[in-house]
Amino acid sequence: MKVGIFGTGMVGRILAEKFVAGGNEVMIGTRNVEETLAKSTQDIMRNPPYKEWQEKNPSVKLGTLDDVAKFGEIIIIATFGNAATNAIESAGKENFADKIVIDTTNPLNPSKGVPPGFTATVGNSLGEQIQNLLPQAKVVKAFNTLGMHIIVSPEREEGNPVLLIAGNDESAKKQVTEIAKGWGWKDIVDYGDISESFWLEAFGMIWIRYAFKNNSWTHGFALLRK
Amino acid sequence: MKVGIFGTGMVGRILAEKFVAGGNEVMIGTRNVEETLAKSTQDIMRNPPYKEWQEKNPSVKLGTLDDVAKFGEIIIIATFGNAATNAIESAGKENFADKIVIDTTNPLNPSKGVPPGFTATVGNSLGEQIQNLLPQAKVVKAFNTLGMHIIVSPEREEGNPVLLIAGNDESAKKQVTEIAKGWGWKDIVDYGDISESFWLEAFGMIWIRYAFKNNSWTHGFALLRK
Repeated sequence: MKVGIFGTGMVGRILAEKFVAGGNEVMIGTRNVEETLAKSTQDIMRNPPYKEWQEKNPSVKLGTLDDVAKFGEIIIIATFGNAATNAIESAGKENFADKIVIDTTNPLNPSKGVPPGFTATVGNSLGEQIQNLLPQAKVVKAFNTLGMHIIVSPEREEGNPVLLIAGNDESAKKQVTEIAKGWGWKDIVDYGDISESFWLEAFGMIWIRYAFKNNSWTHGFALLRK
Repeated sequence: MKVGIFGTGMVGRILAEKFVAGGNEVMIGTRNVEETLAKSTQDIMRNPPYKEWQEKNPSVKLGTLDDVAKFGEIIIIATFGNAATNAIESAGKENFADKIVIDTTNPLNPSKGVPPGFTATVGNSLGEQIQNLLPQAKVVKAFNTLGMHIIVSPEREEGNPVLLIAGNDESAKKQVTEIAKGWGWKDIVDYGDISESFWLEAFGMIWIRYAFKNNSWTHGFALLRK
């Protein structure tokens, strides 16, 4: 499978490694390829320079957002939340038609430090914004409710955490569910259509706020059914 | 302990039974005692008439909101979310001074059917509204994140669910924690000050929406720490 990933930060890198390990072709997108490769300092999240990571992951291609949107059979949005819609627009909306777009973003406001603030409101989540922007794409909100290192390696000592997903297209949700199962997820809940993204984004924030307050990065929530 | 409960619906009744079973004195408050006792039909939530329940729970007193606010050493808000602040105002704000006020409400909008809508926004949760209305009271947001029948009987077959609480006063949170422990809660997380109420109310909605979509009323979320 050809997987296009928007976002050169830690989230994009972790996802790229996981998809490569699963035998997929991966291209990561950035606004400016030369600039991204020229950076020699940590980014604002203290990730090592992209180039350093790239050298350890030589099979991953780096391209423009437009390249990636054309390349991907599945496209994953893994930018900062506040950069997602701009990135999609500059990639050419027509390049997303009929494709599965996995929105992993969270509507964080980092301007006042940590824990970050939250910018979504009911009816105006990032998942809905992205689906509205790309009416011909099959947007699935997924992989945003826990830290990405847990997303790609969900086994916990204390039990099976729950993964919530949401989207309008049943076949797209089924395919995302299969990807998640391949990563070890045992409890995947279809929470409804894309309008439920607000609740997935809120759930992500509940995870994130707990993380910062308790300096905990290994937790997850399990759904006890009875 | 003298426990005052605002709200004659199912939530208030379940809490009253639980506090009575624990050896406490309980008074439930209503806007109009005569009217509440005169009703012979189910309420809009299809609960049996209050009088029927009262006859099975003779030790519970029924009083006006003002009576209850004066009576309670601890006061529990268990009205509909959209009725909470009005009920408190009509009870006389001075009657809450220095008391623990447990806010169990959720900001539901039932006007468009089920699952209900959500009326809170960041910085304007019900917990914060109530604390702002009662600056001398010790408001603790608690017992709103799951159905009340689970709140008073939290043992699940599949594990220990997590109870999130929030509030500004440490001693008040400690007392609420002790109450929860007495009901069987084994994992109680202090999520922070009263401004975190928004996240508890969002967490409650995540529970409620799952409930309506899956006709599930027995589920809970567990926090896996590792």
